[in-house]
Amino acid sequence: MINKYIFTPGPVKMSDDILAIGAKQTPYFRNNEFSKIILECEANILKITNAPKNSRVLFLTASGTAAMEATVQNLLANDDKTLVINGGGFGQRFVDICKLHQKTYVDFKVLNNNLLDTKYLKEYKNIKNLLINAHETSIGLLYNLNSIGQFCKKNNILNIVDAISMFITDELDMQKFNIDALILSSQKGLALPPGISMIVLTPNAIGKLQAQTSLYFDFQSYLDNGLRGQTPFTPAVTILLQLHERLKQIIENGIKNEVLKAQKIANYFRKSIELLPLQLYNEYMPNAMTTLTPSDSKKASNIVKDLDEIYNIIVTPNGGELKDKIFRVSHMGAMTKEYTDILIDALYDYYNIKRKK
Amino acid sequence: MINKYIFTPGPVKMSDDILAIGAKQTPYFRNNEFSKIILECEANILKITNAPKNSRVLFLTASGTAAMEATVQNLLANDDKTLVINGGGFGQRFVDICKLHQKTYVDFKVLNNNLLDTKYLKEYKNIKNLLINAHETSIGLLYNLNSIGQFCKKNNILNIVDAISMFITDELDMQKFNIDALILSSQKGLALPPGISMIVLTPNAIGKLQAQTSLYFDFQSYLDNGLRGQTPFTPAVTILLQLHERLKQIIENGIKNEVLKAQKIANYFRKSIELLPLQLYNEYMPNAMTTLTPSDSKKASNIVKDLDEIYNIIVTPNGGELKDKIFRVSHMGAMTKEYTDILIDALYDYYNIKRKK
Repeated sequence: MINKYIFTPGPVKMSDDILAIGAKQTPYFRNNEFSKIILECEANILKITNAPKNSRVLFLTASGTAAMEATVQNLLANDDKTLVINGGGFGQRFVDICKLHQKTYVDFKVLNNNLLDTKYLKEYKNIKNLLINAHETSIGLLYNLNSIGQFCKKNNILNIVDAISMFITDELDMQKFNIDALILSSQKGLALPPGISMIVLTPNAIGKLQAQTSLYFDFQSYLDNGLRGQTPFTPAVTILLQLHERLKQIIENGIKNEVLKAQKIANYFRKSIELLPLQLYNEYMPNAMTTLTPSDSKKASNIVKDLDEIYNIIVTPNGGELKDKIFRVSHMGAMTKEYTDILIDALYDYYNIKRKK
Repeated sequence: MINKYIFTPGPVKMSDDILAIGAKQTPYFRNNEFSKIILECEANILKITNAPKNSRVLFLTASGTAAMEATVQNLLANDDKTLVINGGGFGQRFVDICKLHQKTYVDFKVLNNNLLDTKYLKEYKNIKNLLINAHETSIGLLYNLNSIGQFCKKNNILNIVDAISMFITDELDMQKFNIDALILSSQKGLALPPGISMIVLTPNAIGKLQAQTSLYFDFQSYLDNGLRGQTPFTPAVTILLQLHERLKQIIENGIKNEVLKAQKIANYFRKSIELLPLQLYNEYMPNAMTTLTPSDSKKASNIVKDLDEIYNIIVTPNGGELKDKIFRVSHMGAMTKEYTDILIDALYDYYNIKRKK
């Protein structure tokens, strides 16, 4: 396959040292040496997310959707009312999962609102669980996790956050944001190959574990095996080795610096394209991604197609009714100003406008 | 981690060209270029397994256990009686899955019997489905798929075969063996990193699809998305690229030659160790693996430990009551006589016996 420039929210650009691990022979993993790798991954994730004491991390070999579904299956009692924050495709996915598994839920639709002001939620004080995608990736909307966390704390609500597409690029602090269960995945901000998803469970979330409904996604068995640094079933070993290295790098750089780096890239991109007939789609964008809408008569879907065909650049199209309205540019992963310039220069060339540097 | 010599049934030794793909940037996959990769993988798997016309392949990002569970969830009606062939740890896993998902099943215990003679099964002619691990990897027992297939055909039974640990090394022919649904995984005979599992469904099996019980493991949605060469959720892209290359190699070499190669290595190993106080554990071994039991007073678990510590060689231990009785040597993957000699020579050295070449 041709190497293209990718600005997609998964897969994202990976660093060369992480890629190099992918070419190593998969080692035997049912031994102490590999257990140490898993235990160090767990400790580093707990540190990076500032998880409360005695929290745990589960490593699933599966995509992010599986982690979302497994979390609903394992943590939600069927009769306890759950509020699903639904701002787009991924919020809708939580709704679909709750429906399929016969959970009692409210589908709370939200658009261009980061929920800083939780007055919108006040009629739902009696709910038991809240499901939210920290960053609704389908349109690039970042919710205010701080206000959501305070609302949950005040009303004794289990706060379950899918942070798959803002982890590493935007602030994520489980204690500050009062998060009880956190869903992560390998192929977005972590900039690893897809295949591993993680769930961080606080003691509070562990206390809510439901009776087993799946063998492969039985959290209790992941918790038990995890004590000795193992998984109940064969994990995606290579990706875990890459995760181990990546987490070490993040700890060394400092998570705050990682977030700052993403913020600088996002701001640089947004500032650099101000002269173009492209507008920011909403007010509450994460550092992870910029969502753009043409302010002239161009169709977003054509821009995506042209960038691919003319410049070998992949940005992210939308489907459905947003197809011609928006496209998305990811800033996740091993991004640099130089790499971002490739897209910026291409856009200026595409619009035949001279870029001011 | 130290590079050790591995003789384990997953992970297995991979070839250098497959490993090199692991170091490539994960490409964007929601486009025609990647769809072509998936569609070619599907076509090649159908060819290699000699699947009946109009069969389909589903690609799950998950381990083999997930594929076993998903198959039970998607193909078995709760009230239709299922016969589970249970010859060890993996047969027991099918039993556990059936129990958890409230399927009606019979737990058929079998030991050191390859079921060539299906008279043992005759009282179960009225069952609707049969679940079998072609190779019960926990002890290295290969069932006679031909006789099982004939029994199923004669009695109109849906024949569901987990062939994860004998695919590529032992004969597997869906039409000859009358297999309706076939479960495969990346990290055994295919010699790829763990993370992808596949299910081949014949039109007969597709006709048995049950109502949806899982979003992540909904076969219908994999079938629908697969028509255009896509998966419903982000797949382990890198492993699929490695699978694509590996399948091409197998088609080029010819599957019969791949099986023959494994057979030669297995026979070479078994013949070479005849002078040692190690006996074959059962009569029905696959080419994939040799299971050995000490004929002197040595404990199998100590042999495993010593091979690791003294020779940097990983063979596979057993747990439970077989811990001191057997250990297993895999011949799967990029195995050569030279690589196998490393283990043979180590064993002769370990027993302080002179090897005759």
